[in-house]
Amino acid sequence: MHAILDAGRVAHVSITDDGQPFGIPVAYGRDGDDLLFHGSTGSRLFRALADGAPCCVTVTLLDGLVLAKSAFASSMNYRCVMALGVARRLDDDESAAALRRINEHLMPGRWADVRKPSRKELAATLVLALPLDECSVKVSAGPPEEEVDDVASSIWSGVVPIIEVLGRPVTAPDSGPDQPVPSYVDSW
Amino acid sequence: MHAILDAGRVAHVSITDDGQPFGIPVAYGRDGDDLLFHGSTGSRLFRALADGAPCCVTVTLLDGLVLAKSAFASSMNYRCVMALGVARRLDDDESAAALRRINEHLMPGRWADVRKPSRKELAATLVLALPLDECSVKVSAGPPEEEVDDVASSIWSGVVPIIEVLGRPVTAPDSGPDQPVPSYVDSW
Repeated sequence: MHAILDAGRVAHVSITDDGQPFGIPVAYGRDGDDLLFHGSTGSRLFRALADGAPCCVTVTLLDGLVLAKSAFASSMNYRCVMALGVARRLDDDESAAALRRINEHLMPGRWADVRKPSRKELAATLVLALPLDECSVKVSAGPPEEEVDDVASSIWSGVVPIIEVLGRPVTAPDSGPDQPVPSYVDSW
Repeated sequence: MHAILDAGRVAHVSITDDGQPFGIPVAYGRDGDDLLFHGSTGSRLFRALADGAPCCVTVTLLDGLVLAKSAFASSMNYRCVMALGVARRLDDDESAAALRRINEHLMPGRWADVRKPSRKELAATLVLALPLDECSVKVSAGPPEEEVDDVASSIWSGVVPIIEVLGRPVTAPDSGPDQPVPSYVDSW
C-alpha cells in the first residue's frame, strides 16, 4: 500500500454533500500511516471534511492495456489503494510539516529552495490527515486471463504498458534571466 | 469537455453507500453526451448505481508539476471533468453497443479482432450511461502564477511536463507462437 501511495501524484477524494457524492482530485503526501492532502478554507467540501464528514481517498495508477482474446476478459492493469475514514484537520504546526511532506512527495528536493508558507497562507489552507486504517489494495498485473474456450483461438493477445514520464523542465518567464534549471529538478 | 474525456482512460466514480462515500476507478467511453462505464452485476455499488443512486464521475488528466517561487503557489497543471447525476442502466442491445464504444475508446481498432461478448457475459455486466448534463470543467495550464511579492525573487520557477506514453506491446504466452503484433496495436 505504501509503495502505491508513494508512486502516485494525484488522489481522488470522495465526499457526500447533501446526498450528492463528489469526487475531487487532490495532490497528496504520506506521513507513516496518514495520508495528507489540502484544500482551501473557502471550499465547502473541504470544510465538511474538516468537520468530520466520512470520505474515501482513492489513488489509482494505470500500468497497462490488457488485450485479451475476448472483449469480456480485456481490461487494464493497475494498482489502486482505497482508504475510508474521517480526516482530521491539522493545526498550524502540523500543517506546515504536512505541506512540506506533500511538496517533497511531488517535488523532491524543492522545499529547500521554495519560499515557505506565510502565516496568512497557512490560515487559508485546510490541511487534512486521513489515517490509513480501513484500506483496500487492488493490483491487476501480468498477461490477460482468458476464458478457457478462448485460449486456443488465434487472436493476438498481450499487454501494452502505460508509463508516466516527466518531460524537459520549462523555465517560467518570471524565473529571471539566465537561471539554470536546479539539479534536483533535472534529476526527476 | 469532450476533448478531455476522449483523452482519458480511467474515471473515478463516487457513490455513497449507507453514508460512506466510495471512489471507484473504472474504464469508460463516451457516446455523444453520455459517459459510458460498466461493472459487475455482483457489485453492490454498481447495483446501487443501476437503482438510481446519485453519483459523480471525475476524469483527471495530469499535465505538469508547477514549481512556483512559493510553496503556496506551487501546484499541478491538469484538466478535469466532473459530471454529476444519475446513471441509467442500459438494456442488452444498448449494452453491447456501449461495450464496443468503451473498448474502442481504450483500444482503437481492436473490436474487429476480439471475440465479442456472449449473451452470458452480457448478463454478468452492468453497463451504465451517465448523461453529461451537470458538469464542471477545470483546466490549469501554463507557468506558475506567483504572488506579487515573489516575482522579483531569484528562485527558479517553471513547469515540468507530465506525459503518459504507451510502451512496446508484450505478446501474451497464450497468444500462440509467431503471432505478430497487430498493426493497430503497433500504431498506438
